[in-house]
Amino acid sequence: MTSTLISNIGTLVTNDPSHPGLLGIVEQAAVVIDGSVVTWTGRAADAPAADQHYDAAGRALLPGFVDSHAHLVFAGDRTAEFDARMSGQAYTAGGIRTTVAATRAASDAELDANLARFVREALRQGTTTIECKSGYGLTVEDEARALRIAADHTPETTYLGAHVVAPEYAEDPAGYVDLVTGEMLDACAPYARWVDVFCEQGAFDGDQARAILTAGVERGLTPRVHANQLSYGPGVQLAVELGAASADHCTHLTDADVAALAGSGTVATLLPGAEFSTRAAYPDARRLLDAGATVALSTDCNPGSSFTSSMAFCIAVAVREMGMTPDEAVHAATVGGARALRRTDVGRIAPGARADLLLLDAPSPVHLAYRPGVPLTAAVWRAGVREL
Amino acid sequence: MTSTLISNIGTLVTNDPSHPGLLGIVEQAAVVIDGSVVTWTGRAADAPAADQHYDAAGRALLPGFVDSHAHLVFAGDRTAEFDARMSGQAYTAGGIRTTVAATRAASDAELDANLARFVREALRQGTTTIECKSGYGLTVEDEARALRIAADHTPETTYLGAHVVAPEYAEDPAGYVDLVTGEMLDACAPYARWVDVFCEQGAFDGDQARAILTAGVERGLTPRVHANQLSYGPGVQLAVELGAASADHCTHLTDADVAALAGSGTVATLLPGAEFSTRAAYPDARRLLDAGATVALSTDCNPGSSFTSSMAFCIAVAVREMGMTPDEAVHAATVGGARALRRTDVGRIAPGARADLLLLDAPSPVHLAYRPGVPLTAAVWRAGVREL
Ligand SMILES: [Zn+2]
Ligand SMILES: [Zn+2]
Repeated sequence: MTSTLISNIGTLVTNDPSHPGLLGIVEQAAVVIDGSVVTWTGRAADAPAADQHYDAAGRALLPGFVDSHAHLVFAGDRTAEFDARMSGQAYTAGGIRTTVAATRAASDAELDANLARFVREALRQGTTTIECKSGYGLTVEDEARALRIAADHTPETTYLGAHVVAPEYAEDPAGYVDLVTGEMLDACAPYARWVDVFCEQGAFDGDQARAILTAGVERGLTPRVHANQLSYGPGVQLAVELGAASADHCTHLTDADVAALAGSGTVATLLPGAEFSTRAAYPDARRLLDAGATVALSTDCNPGSSFTSSMAFCIAVAVREMGMTPDEAVHAATVGGARALRRTDVGRIAPGARADLLLLDAPSPVHLAYRPGVPLTAAVWRAGVREL
Repeated sequence: MTSTLISNIGTLVTNDPSHPGLLGIVEQAAVVIDGSVVTWTGRAADAPAADQHYDAAGRALLPGFVDSHAHLVFAGDRTAEFDARMSGQAYTAGGIRTTVAATRAASDAELDANLARFVREALRQGTTTIECKSGYGLTVEDEARALRIAADHTPETTYLGAHVVAPEYAEDPAGYVDLVTGEMLDACAPYARWVDVFCEQGAFDGDQARAILTAGVERGLTPRVHANQLSYGPGVQLAVELGAASADHCTHLTDADVAALAGSGTVATLLPGAEFSTRAAYPDARRLLDAGATVALSTDCNPGSSFTSSMAFCIAVAVREMGMTPDEAVHAATVGGARALRRTDVGRIAPGARADLLLLDAPSPVHLAYRPGVPLTAAVWRAGVREL
């Protein structure tokens, strides 16, 4: 293996508690990577020799972003729906069902190419770990196909047959829950790490969500929950009770919900892209942080409610709108996402961690919020491989 | 000269009223450029032959963005100030005076390199015309130097000696107005097209602003005004009265201010990056549009209150927060900016216009709002030259 010394790092974000501050900052730093892992971090003046050398030119180096919530196996887009919503016009077409129909009609190759394009787009923006859900197939074959395709691109695959009730079961939601917990689960479990459910009025209620998550757990999947996005509800409490890795959205929380999250190992994953693109009120990150909950930021990238793949954008909006400091938002977008995926090998830069690195075209991670919308990627390494 | 046929354009935004809709859309379109200008637009099926061919692959082609308000001749940044503000901490350092001190201390070469970097950064994001103000020198020599450097990068140079009262004149603001309307104007006018003033409590009042703008007009400069950003005030009415090309910010407007803009040739230039980065309330674009005013969107790119160079970001925020439809925001960022600079050669794609073109990595201009934060530049031409 070839080792590389990255030197002249102006500000190194390690997320390693042995260094100062929330972000474990080292200034005038260096990092050594060897093969796919980090082998050394510290002050540049103390750096060991390596086979190769990369000059970071005083810029900031961060762990690659960990985007723990994305819906990327789909076909088509929903431009007209977005345009109508933001123009204040009525739009009566199918919403999520539009994407389900387009996804079912697409070939495996089309879905794979679309997914590869989004993973690459995210990588160019510094995202080196990305989760990917099913949920636009809603048949046994289409859900299994989505996860089989997703598994070629990421290990973080999530079975979301319970995204909405499939149109064929509109009159028989109980029958759809039986399918999701039975034959569909059998077909999907081999390709999935996680099981998820959209627990919300109009989707799945608390009892249905419990049945779906429990069935997934029995097949060896770990739960995560779309919870409390559009209204107060049982999703967050259920997530905590079942030991879910994450409760996602968390826009409408009671004090009891906040306390439950703070007292649990369940991460609160906030998805400001969704509120941005639907003109909804933002979740209150400050309240969660002050209570002691672990917060992650993710994109929720999907063609309906949040078609951004930009973690930097989510950081900027979280700082503007959700009461997070720049450091807290960067933390949530890196190690926060890693915790939401129960990963310790990503989201930090320390010996033994995977060499997933984002070099910013800026001297400080604060610039991710300070320079909103500006592409700031200077270089990206994923598992030690320089990707751009 | 060599002509180039750009064909297979999925959606062409012409801003030419002879085509349908606010944006003058042509679908399945082609454009021919010859030298630095556009020579033909229309349906791809009708396109004439050309020397070279570029396949747009079904993507959207827009006029390059016209960023009519930016402050780019400066040194240093204000990361710590931004971080403190967004973290709810007190910060007593110098604000704009920090940038004035750093700018004065910088060499010509440093200022030129910084400006070149920002112009390039903007170009990579599709901005092909950019205005540039002085205002961080605040001495005769430093203001003239800023404009001399700016004039090497853009014809849209704005004398903003009246950004704030120079620290040396803190006890003698009338003396500073005399300088700005006298010796400083004499030194700056040869390098400037525009004269601007920050008409606001704590900066320059209505009488001072009138004196400064009038002096500039007498030297052949055309006025534009920083007006009504932080509070109600006389700036907008003064801009209209003096025939300014633009009143910029327009965050606090009375009904009379709106009516004055709507009945004038003065463009209302809205700068949502400033409200985003200072957590201020956004201007109401809907109210201005409904009254019949011409609206432009610009970045206000500067290291203190709005350090974004992304016109796409401004479009997305304007749609989310300011009541603009996606089409209105794209219009404001292209032909709106052109009107704010009294330019007819940019901001549109039509025979005779300058060949300033932005090819999006997306099928529709709506994606600029639909995909917030995602870099969508596929290619850029400036004056017919393919820049990336
Ligand atoms: Zn989701
Ligand atoms: Zn300004």
